Amino acid sequence: MKIAILLYEDMTALDAIGPYEVLSRLPDADVRFAAEKKGLVRTDTGFLRLSADYELSEVSRADILLVPGGPGDGQVRQSGRVLDWLRMLHEKTRFTASVCTGSLILGAAGLLQGLRATTHWTRMEMLREFGAEPTGERVVEQGKIVTAAGVSAGIDMALRLVQKISGDDFSQAVQLGIEYDPQPPFDSGSPAKAPGHVVDLVRSIMG
Amino acid sequence: MKIAILLYEDMTALDAIGPYEVLSRLPDADVRFAAEKKGLVRTDTGFLRLSADYELSEVSRADILLVPGGPGDGQVRQSGRVLDWLRMLHEKTRFTASVCTGSLILGAAGLLQGLRATTHWTRMEMLREFGAEPTGERVVEQGKIVTAAGVSAGIDMALRLVQKISGDDFSQAVQLGIEYDPQPPFDSGSPAKAPGHVVDLVRSIMG
Repeated sequence: MKIAILLYEDMTALDAIGPYEVLSRLPDADVRFAAEKKGLVRTDTGFLRLSADYELSEVSRADILLVPGGPGDGQVRQSGRVLDWLRMLHEKTRFTASVCTGSLILGAAGLLQGLRATTHWTRMEMLREFGAEPTGERVVEQGKIVTAAGVSAGIDMALRLVQKISGDDFSQAVQLGIEYDPQPPFDSGSPAKAPGHVVDLVRSIMG
Repeated sequence: MKIAILLYEDMTALDAIGPYEVLSRLPDADVRFAAEKKGLVRTDTGFLRLSADYELSEVSRADILLVPGGPGDGQVRQSGRVLDWLRMLHEKTRFTASVCTGSLILGAAGLLQGLRATTHWTRMEMLREFGAEPTGERVVEQGKIVTAAGVSAGIDMALRLVQKISGDDFSQAVQLGIEYDPQPPFDSGSPAKAPGHVVDLVRSIMG
């Protein structure tokens, strides 16, 4: 099971690491973190650097292709090299997946035309620019293209992919292995659930 | 707000990156990833390397000290240098926190003596070796020492720390910012909730 994860400057680390932690437990998983240039990639906070051990040309096939989001997504959407690579891999993937604004990158590659999709809730309407139909669902499956909502939604998406690939028992086993039994102190993880002034606060920070 | 996160070979990436994604959003956060040796640290799957931009001696103070878990925890518990560093930082922290088997490392440093604590459910009884009282709770607060259960529990713990440091609104805003509105396909994230044969399966894999 070849898994390719795109890394780029100013991406959000958890968008990639959440699903990675789940998908890397698939039987025979072979995960490759790839970027335009091999080496260290600085994530959006500036505090954490992840190693891209492969450059794009070294990853020519993937069963699962994963595109994380983050403030750097706009830059990536301008990169013909990345978009070509995504289109090329997508032809033979079993699943092409995104987390957060990673879906905007899939959109820029022309892969969401006419499909329902999701992204970070503050960026939802941007999906229309790429011919996609925004939906507030946490994980949206459209054939082999699977988009997840903001940041942490990638964990839920990855557990669903594991379920499809290796079945119910194995997905539950991975969930139990990472003890994913969420108990946040509040129930404010979506704009529909958070208090209005908290939604406004996040909008003012995230623009 | 100085945040120090210990990195080491064969750690579990999400143990560190989950809480990092939350804590790095604290006002004036300054996060330092530190390891015995500066440079790349290979995580437990072998597929992902994180950059330790600091060596231990370069981080002499932290408001929050975070110790992740992973299969490499046993090696770290033998390292006098790491344990000395943890004890030294702990003297002045506001919170000393662990995720998963990171609590066993805190225990080896002598910091859990007589305290209630948690860890990954498959390792729970090991806490007794360090004079701690195991509990199945997801997040255990004992004064300024806060331990979290396996892997993904660090996200919940970090949201609690943000609540204590910056208040309810801000914690909710961070939760909404990362869209932490969990919707896993199953409810099997703890041994009490997962089917018996799934619990057995994970035990057989994780030993």
